Amino acid sequence: MSTNLSINPDRLWQTLMASAEIGRTPAGGIRRLTLSDEDKVMRDLFVSWVRAEGYELKIDRLGSMFVRREGTDPNAAPVLVGSHLDTQAKGGRFDGILGVMSGLEILRTLDERGIKTRRPIEVVNWTNEEGARFPPPMLASLVFSDPAQLAWVEDRCDKEGVRLSDELARIGYRGEEPVGGREIDSYFEIHIEQGPKLDAAGLQLGIVTGGFAMQGMRVSVRGETSHVGPTPMTLRRNALVGASYVVVAIDDIGWRYAPEDGKTTAARLDLRPNLPGILSDEAELWIDFRHPDKTRLPDMAAEVEAAVAESARRSRTRIEIAERWGFGGLAFDAGLITLIRETAARLGVATMDLQSQAGHDAYNMNRVCPTAMIFTPCKGGISHNEAEDIDFAATVPGVNVLLHAVLARAS
Amino acid sequence: MSTNLSINPDRLWQTLMASAEIGRTPAGGIRRLTLSDEDKVMRDLFVSWVRAEGYELKIDRLGSMFVRREGTDPNAAPVLVGSHLDTQAKGGRFDGILGVMSGLEILRTLDERGIKTRRPIEVVNWTNEEGARFPPPMLASLVFSDPAQLAWVEDRCDKEGVRLSDELARIGYRGEEPVGGREIDSYFEIHIEQGPKLDAAGLQLGIVTGGFAMQGMRVSVRGETSHVGPTPMTLRRNALVGASYVVVAIDDIGWRYAPEDGKTTAARLDLRPNLPGILSDEAELWIDFRHPDKTRLPDMAAEVEAAVAESARRSRTRIEIAERWGFGGLAFDAGLITLIRETAARLGVATMDLQSQAGHDAYNMNRVCPTAMIFTPCKGGISHNEAEDIDFAATVPGVNVLLHAVLARAS
Repeated sequence: MSTNLSINPDRLWQTLMASAEIGRTPAGGIRRLTLSDEDKVMRDLFVSWVRAEGYELKIDRLGSMFVRREGTDPNAAPVLVGSHLDTQAKGGRFDGILGVMSGLEILRTLDERGIKTRRPIEVVNWTNEEGARFPPPMLASLVFSDPAQLAWVEDRCDKEGVRLSDELARIGYRGEEPVGGREIDSYFEIHIEQGPKLDAAGLQLGIVTGGFAMQGMRVSVRGETSHVGPTPMTLRRNALVGASYVVVAIDDIGWRYAPEDGKTTAARLDLRPNLPGILSDEAELWIDFRHPDKTRLPDMAAEVEAAVAESARRSRTRIEIAERWGFGGLAFDAGLITLIRETAARLGVATMDLQSQAGHDAYNMNRVCPTAMIFTPCKGGISHNEAEDIDFAATVPGVNVLLHAVLARAS
Repeated sequence: MSTNLSINPDRLWQTLMASAEIGRTPAGGIRRLTLSDEDKVMRDLFVSWVRAEGYELKIDRLGSMFVRREGTDPNAAPVLVGSHLDTQAKGGRFDGILGVMSGLEILRTLDERGIKTRRPIEVVNWTNEEGARFPPPMLASLVFSDPAQLAWVEDRCDKEGVRLSDELARIGYRGEEPVGGREIDSYFEIHIEQGPKLDAAGLQLGIVTGGFAMQGMRVSVRGETSHVGPTPMTLRRNALVGASYVVVAIDDIGWRYAPEDGKTTAARLDLRPNLPGILSDEAELWIDFRHPDKTRLPDMAAEVEAAVAESARRSRTRIEIAERWGFGGLAFDAGLITLIRETAARLGVATMDLQSQAGHDAYNMNRVCPTAMIFTPCKGGISHNEAEDIDFAATVPGVNVLLHAVLARAS
């Protein structure tokens, strides 16, 4: 295929900017939590584009949207390209969105040029990649890779106790298609790096070789309510104090592993009753920790467990690790990585090998089919922040590499 | 007056137990946040009792309820007795409620015996003593002692942004009477100790000589949202980490002052956006610290301020003390204390001098008129807890001392 084939940057930019208006925040970011009213508006707009192009659209039981451009071989498994259109509560304009819109742009480009492929190409918008509203993240692709988990995922609730499945029905995106259980030839995902390395190196394309190993935990603290005034220090069992000891301890652990590029996070803390005048007796704390080398993750976990025990002792509360989950520590498909590397070389795009530090739906797809990811630069590495930004000219080469790699795989 | 005069314990117990049904929690405590639907039910029941006895009822602009039994001298300033009927989110059955119901029981006892007093006696139910819903606490008596603060108090909002004044109107208790600004002869408040000293000593009556000095602060933390995964430790500004450093530091300060009976509390922490996947950029932390000796409070404050600065440095967030308030560090009226001490001696009730560690409306009334408090035992010192409990037989002597002291003051 000619190296002259390229996507239409203006058209891609227009779709990105149309998305940026939906859930736009005063600071110029996006708040488009999964299955919210804003998510519905974005999905409806996406459907209107897909219908206008005449593509088939299928929506599965978890609301993931599959846009299909048929191939010449009716029996060939599809090449899947995509990412997600949901955002964090204070999210940016490109995280996930670039991947879905690039997929759509690839279909439009092939149509425009009248290029046929042997395999069908499907573009996917995964539901709830962020997990901001329904933790943990990447639930729809998780079920796609492991359909037995469907019922558990449908029952996940947000902070107000609203079920994921009920919200899907409310916004009209609880589809008919089964989740997963079908053959996929390969999965490609293009995404902003969400880290500073490409930007610092002045490079336009990161070849993602795999993902950091991540472990998440829900830490549960139980104390006792009592009066903030008369209760002697020796009788206090303040759940907020217990949780805070854990937060400080895991922050210290993060610094101890920082020289190896390990990191720790205290992301969310819910307290009850959390009112002045009374000590809180219940705290739920969400933490996670990550390391580029999955063999080091158990060492970090052991330090976190020791910190939890010590925090319980010092605060005289009961603290337990109530739930654990994890992802990453994986290697993407060697064949697809070679395809991307060679495609980039052919197009004259300089690359850098990277590990993904964030979670992506590609991690789940890596269990289903050959999978690969491409990173594009992200200014200052800032992401999950309204100030998230890209240099679009430095992004287009990555999308063109994706176009050529997908085309090669589908031909 | 004969030492045989005594209240009717069964009748007092019935009013306490009727109250215990309103907002009752499964664990046997009460959740009756100020101006909630439960508070309205309690107020309505209290009004029905007052009306049945034929007392005049006045409700002021902040919803505080004044039940008046006339005296023989129409020009004499009233003796005021009371406390509050609101509770914490997980509160007990006696905190505050004992004081209001004891006042009503005193009026009923005097009526039953046909005893006239020169001064009117008024029983008060102060709005929002707890401050659990509309912080800080004791707002209605604050305005009673300083009417210039009315507008500020009317504008206080709960967590959902609902104004205090609007909730007063909603439940029908935004009264016509001005708040304060009238002459009060004296104020008496009987209350459970909310500490373990009387219970441990096996005594039935505490004479409250004054109150611990307390300082409250709202600590404001500003960080930056970013992705929990790729963001290097060196670029993180997690508001939860900043707040947790403050919590741990002030808990340590509490332990350093514990030998002097000082104490510190981290009571409430609000985080935004407080979701998995993203670092929170905003935290609001409510703390307080108390000391029996008001001259030591500035030393504690200096340690807290140093801890705030150090916490900001370690977490690389901005942390400031956004609001401060305080109460206590006061001495109650020497004349009333002598009256209570002599009355107890006459009735053969052994007493112990105590300082109050919690805040009470009596602190505000102490600025308006001679004021005194009586403490009764509280099992294990447990309060602001659904397990709060009393030995009622050990409580009745305190109510009788209150009856005789009020009668002496009103005659």
